[in-house]
Amino acid sequence: MGEPLASWEDRAAKAAVLEFVERVSAAGVPPEERVAVFDNDGTLWCEKPMPIQADFVLRRLFQMAEADPALREKQPWKTAHERDYGWLGTVLEEHYAGDDTNVRTLAAGVLAAHAGISVDDFEAQADAFLRTARHPTLDRGYLECAYAPMVELLRYLEANGFSNYIASGGGRDFMRPVSQELYGIPRDRVIGSATALEYTTDDRGGAIVRKPEADFLDDGPEKPVRIWSRIGRRPILAAGNSNGDVPMLEFTWHTSRPFLRLLVVHDDAEREFAYTAGAEDALERARAQDWTVVSIADDWATVFA
Amino acid sequence: MGEPLASWEDRAAKAAVLEFVERVSAAGVPPEERVAVFDNDGTLWCEKPMPIQADFVLRRLFQMAEADPALREKQPWKTAHERDYGWLGTVLEEHYAGDDTNVRTLAAGVLAAHAGISVDDFEAQADAFLRTARHPTLDRGYLECAYAPMVELLRYLEANGFSNYIASGGGRDFMRPVSQELYGIPRDRVIGSATALEYTTDDRGGAIVRKPEADFLDDGPEKPVRIWSRIGRRPILAAGNSNGDVPMLEFTWHTSRPFLRLLVVHDDAEREFAYTAGAEDALERARAQDWTVVSIADDWATVFA
Repeated sequence: MGEPLASWEDRAAKAAVLEFVERVSAAGVPPEERVAVFDNDGTLWCEKPMPIQADFVLRRLFQMAEADPALREKQPWKTAHERDYGWLGTVLEEHYAGDDTNVRTLAAGVLAAHAGISVDDFEAQADAFLRTARHPTLDRGYLECAYAPMVELLRYLEANGFSNYIASGGGRDFMRPVSQELYGIPRDRVIGSATALEYTTDDRGGAIVRKPEADFLDDGPEKPVRIWSRIGRRPILAAGNSNGDVPMLEFTWHTSRPFLRLLVVHDDAEREFAYTAGAEDALERARAQDWTVVSIADDWATVFA
Repeated sequence: MGEPLASWEDRAAKAAVLEFVERVSAAGVPPEERVAVFDNDGTLWCEKPMPIQADFVLRRLFQMAEADPALREKQPWKTAHERDYGWLGTVLEEHYAGDDTNVRTLAAGVLAAHAGISVDDFEAQADAFLRTARHPTLDRGYLECAYAPMVELLRYLEANGFSNYIASGGGRDFMRPVSQELYGIPRDRVIGSATALEYTTDDRGGAIVRKPEADFLDDGPEKPVRIWSRIGRRPILAAGNSNGDVPMLEFTWHTSRPFLRLLVVHDDAEREFAYTAGAEDALERARAQDWTVVSIADDWATVFA
């Protein structure tokens, strides 16, 4: 490993990370307590014009609507079939404003899209999609949409004895097939939203099958709950980019340990995207509570590898 | 490490374990796939005359009934206050026979016993109990109720690159404070039943608080679901002792990897306990499907350290 965080500009954010890791080492924080949690969409990889998993689901909804014309009049199949995604933007804006009526309509469609198949089949589909589909505007495959400076940060933390976890609102089982390759994060360290699963018995080891209902949505106040449930510890580093990450960042707090909260700000319309919708509260908290703000425009020399 | 599994008698069970580990090494199974899952109550530590966590909860229910006489007429406070645990035996027998009416009554009491406190406070209480309370008949503290041959097995597997997990019907948060010390299993590898948790915000990192409702009961067909959710892999070794472990043992099955299913049989009234109630189906499956049966009386030279 050469110079740490080489793709980060020499500015306050990089200095804060390096200084934090030095303090962790100097304080002799035991390895098992060096827990770092990362949101995925918009923090580790690109989430615009829509989250990558949304593209995966829309393609499946499109297929379903092709096969069954009755579905074409119902959301979310209608939006998928017409390839007119305006409705989705509205749903997200409503969600960030606290209205989840259409989120439930969307969720029911998302859950129906892959219901009744085994977790192995779902993983094979997610894996195939992620390895072949391309980002609609960035002229690169989805697996090349990870932020190079964040991947560098993950490796730097790992080299300093940290255990990195994904703590995403996205689907746990969607990210697992690529998390090791993309981020060096093993599949068992992926925390994310989950559908309800069911074990069905047979004489060949049984199968685990997806049910058309959510187990939990790992967003907002659910993030600290799922982090604690999974790890049994409070992280010392958390990175996010949206309002849904606020409780996780808030939870990353200690009286006798160094801790660091990173907020990635999307302000680079040229190399990535510029938006604050869905991050208003997070930006306000960052200012009020001295979180470390990471400006894509100013702090990253490179965005994508 | 001296001779492996020194406290196991030189019989078929020990030979099966040694041969399995040899096959895993010979096959070059990658470390991340060397996943072993262990039930806790009755598999790693003693579960009679009642599960250790039941004693913890009963003491709390007793305190509650002392403080509020109205509770003394209601189950499970009545059984706790009268120190007449016959009702509990009935509930367990009904459960194993498929009738969960009284299980729900019991569960509501169990959930009420520690509702509204933070996970940190709960953990401190569980920890203090486990370090001070004593087994009612074995003349030893609860922390000395782990089976020495199983602890030896855990260490032997660990030395051979395995990752050991607890996959228990007992409470995840009850076991976590002692799992490392007792079994060398870190807190983040404890899978168990969980109460619903809630994140409450404040300006000092927030808190995670126990709600008076179950998140899930990690028993029977829920065990493979929770193992898969947590690890994202099928184990290659599983050990259990009761009907609730059957799906987990069944799930431990591969076409192209060595795998081993262990069933601990309680047949030693002298050194531990002798009982088959709640294990009838498991014993039948063990015979039919060639699981490796571990007789406490015959296979273990020592039971407790």
